Amino acid sequence: MVEKRQPIPVKEAIERVMERARPLNSEIVPLDLAYGRILAESIIASHSVPPFDRSPYDGFAVRSIDTNGASGDSRISFKVVDHIGAGTVSMHTIGEREAVRIMTGAPLPDGADAVVMLEQTVIDGDTFTIRKSFSPLENVSLKGEDAKEGEMIVEAGTYIHPGIIAVMATFGYAKVSVSKKPVVGLLATGTELLEVSDPLEPGKIRNSNGPMIAAQLARMGIEYRLLGTLPDDEEACYELVKKAVDECDAVITTGGVSVGDFDFLPAIYKRLGADVLFNKVAMRPGSVTTVAHVNNTFLFGLSGNPSACFTGFELFARPAFLLMMGCDKPYLPYEKAILTEDFTKANPFSRFIRAVYESTPNGAFVKPAGFNKSNAVTSIARGNSFIVLPGGTRGFQKGDEVDVLLLGTEEGVEQWMLD
Amino acid sequence: MVEKRQPIPVKEAIERVMERARPLNSEIVPLDLAYGRILAESIIASHSVPPFDRSPYDGFAVRSIDTNGASGDSRISFKVVDHIGAGTVSMHTIGEREAVRIMTGAPLPDGADAVVMLEQTVIDGDTFTIRKSFSPLENVSLKGEDAKEGEMIVEAGTYIHPGIIAVMATFGYAKVSVSKKPVVGLLATGTELLEVSDPLEPGKIRNSNGPMIAAQLARMGIEYRLLGTLPDDEEACYELVKKAVDECDAVITTGGVSVGDFDFLPAIYKRLGADVLFNKVAMRPGSVTTVAHVNNTFLFGLSGNPSACFTGFELFARPAFLLMMGCDKPYLPYEKAILTEDFTKANPFSRFIRAVYESTPNGAFVKPAGFNKSNAVTSIARGNSFIVLPGGTRGFQKGDEVDVLLLGTEEGVEQWMLD
Repeated sequence: MVEKRQPIPVKEAIERVMERARPLNSEIVPLDLAYGRILAESIIASHSVPPFDRSPYDGFAVRSIDTNGASGDSRISFKVVDHIGAGTVSMHTIGEREAVRIMTGAPLPDGADAVVMLEQTVIDGDTFTIRKSFSPLENVSLKGEDAKEGEMIVEAGTYIHPGIIAVMATFGYAKVSVSKKPVVGLLATGTELLEVSDPLEPGKIRNSNGPMIAAQLARMGIEYRLLGTLPDDEEACYELVKKAVDECDAVITTGGVSVGDFDFLPAIYKRLGADVLFNKVAMRPGSVTTVAHVNNTFLFGLSGNPSACFTGFELFARPAFLLMMGCDKPYLPYEKAILTEDFTKANPFSRFIRAVYESTPNGAFVKPAGFNKSNAVTSIARGNSFIVLPGGTRGFQKGDEVDVLLLGTEEGVEQWMLD
Repeated sequence: MVEKRQPIPVKEAIERVMERARPLNSEIVPLDLAYGRILAESIIASHSVPPFDRSPYDGFAVRSIDTNGASGDSRISFKVVDHIGAGTVSMHTIGEREAVRIMTGAPLPDGADAVVMLEQTVIDGDTFTIRKSFSPLENVSLKGEDAKEGEMIVEAGTYIHPGIIAVMATFGYAKVSVSKKPVVGLLATGTELLEVSDPLEPGKIRNSNGPMIAAQLARMGIEYRLLGTLPDDEEACYELVKKAVDECDAVITTGGVSVGDFDFLPAIYKRLGADVLFNKVAMRPGSVTTVAHVNNTFLFGLSGNPSACFTGFELFARPAFLLMMGCDKPYLPYEKAILTEDFTKANPFSRFIRAVYESTPNGAFVKPAGFNKSNAVTSIARGNSFIVLPGGTRGFQKGDEVDVLLLGTEEGVEQWMLD
């Protein structure tokens, strides 16, 4: 008797996974290793930015009052009484019609309240003339105009991109608290699998899911533990999975989740006492994707078919890992685009089609990346996105507007945007 | 006398840089280190995919001719003569009303030309019955339907994402030829710069550009050589830059490219005999960005202002490095979006505003990330994109459609999409 499984919608499957994901602890890393991690503390302005009133240009610091009435016909002359570079502070207090030569970023000397740009002067020895008047604070970057001391600049949970590195450096964060990465174990199933370096044998194929998932993890900065290949023997499988569950925050298997004679994983989940969050999702490819949870460890039972495995990882494992790392934007970014080819298959379930997306000033366009059965590998290589077609729809025509999820972006979005 | 510089359009500046970029040599890496590199060889199908006619489902391999006439009222019975798993090959040739139990991915036995899914049967011991007829090749994945032996699957020049790893594994690429990464040296200028771990001093700020550029390079998988801080002394600067040029494929400096008394770099470019590709770009921030080229080495003279530095890197250094690595998609991806806040400043030059972009099923929206002067650091931390406003325009209003370039995507696009 074949087990009947009840498919649940993709959105509900994702919710069931995300409900169980718990943030991991944090750890301290030096700034130069912080890129790509998730902030576990908020970044606070340790001083105002700018930290002092400063010049945004190369030029001369003056008193604006002395510039009143300057014009092309009636130029006003100033005497240069000091030269300062960035990082040095003038000891001079500027008096009437006096000026200090100042460079970009240097603090305004006492008395000065405006900066004349170099290009706005005619210089003659240690004097120069100007042909326009300057308002108080003209060409001055005010202390604190960018950030006030104590202001929260970046929230915990944010992906650390290069701009955040700049801010942390500015505020003296030589070390920073980031979320720990989950320990992820990887188990391939199936005696049909050869290693990448093996020659092909009759009836067998090489293990492509293992290296692919390793790269999907690397994309998030997560190292994996290669736990080997599950033998086609239930007892040995059970021991291997049990050990993996004890050691890891998540265990990913590929294959073995169908209802066939050789698919042991459902039985193993049962023996482990794992909560099976779902074992059938209303999606193609990857409908057999199973996620279970036991002792705070996830068991991601991905399909053995490469495209289905890829899709299951991106939809379920990826956001869970990002949430475990405290990331506030764990979902794949959304785009809407015009289909540039017919896609005539009906879609009883939500369909995720590996696709090539490109946005141009003339519009955003997308097309299937190639051959789109669930066991296809070549279209994976060509796609940078998924076209998502809702379940219960007929085929789509060239020119139709479709939903797209982008792959391989540094930062995701806060919400799953599809039904 | 202040030097007058002629600004050139951003697009032309990028073209001048890209014209000089030369692909570096290639090197061989093992598959598990290939993620994130650029392919220097094309990936060819070393065998057909599937490599044999195979079953896409768990079920029974049969002869379709034996299923003719099956219906709910007139079920046809089959005898199971063999069981095979994936990776094994049946020795049996299927005869009339015989079937072989087959699992997903297993090769079709001789004689069979269709697969009955498990769910389509009623099983009784070693027989089962079906209620519908099957066409020849129904539920069969044909040899070569995904890829033919010898077919080119991925072109050289492609960024290696996880899907490409899967394809390489499938075809036995245990090692692969990838482009070498450029050797990039980093020099900060300005005696106003403190180290990240230093306490703040009057008139000084911490060096945020160095760590930021290091992260911008890390984003492309490029390590950098920290060559120190340029002293405010022209001769010492010259020696340091000259040594850097000899050792690196590109030298990045931050600051020192203006026309002020303390800006030595223009003179150093001259002494080095470097071709100055441009020293003024019609853009804000970063108009002083200078790129020079000597002995096949790039000198990227970025502004010392954090936002300008960031922008100059993304617009000029990033695509040059990607092209040096042979990447066929070196430019930032484009999106069009609706502005959700007024931006009232006029734009004499093209303006690049760090921005927060989000696309939803209701449209794509973008807003400035915060304070937007060129010396701002906090908006860098908040943005995931640039709003690009064309030069020669007045302010923009909430609701206007604007051009956006995305930051932090794994794969870029083939062309610079803006004028």
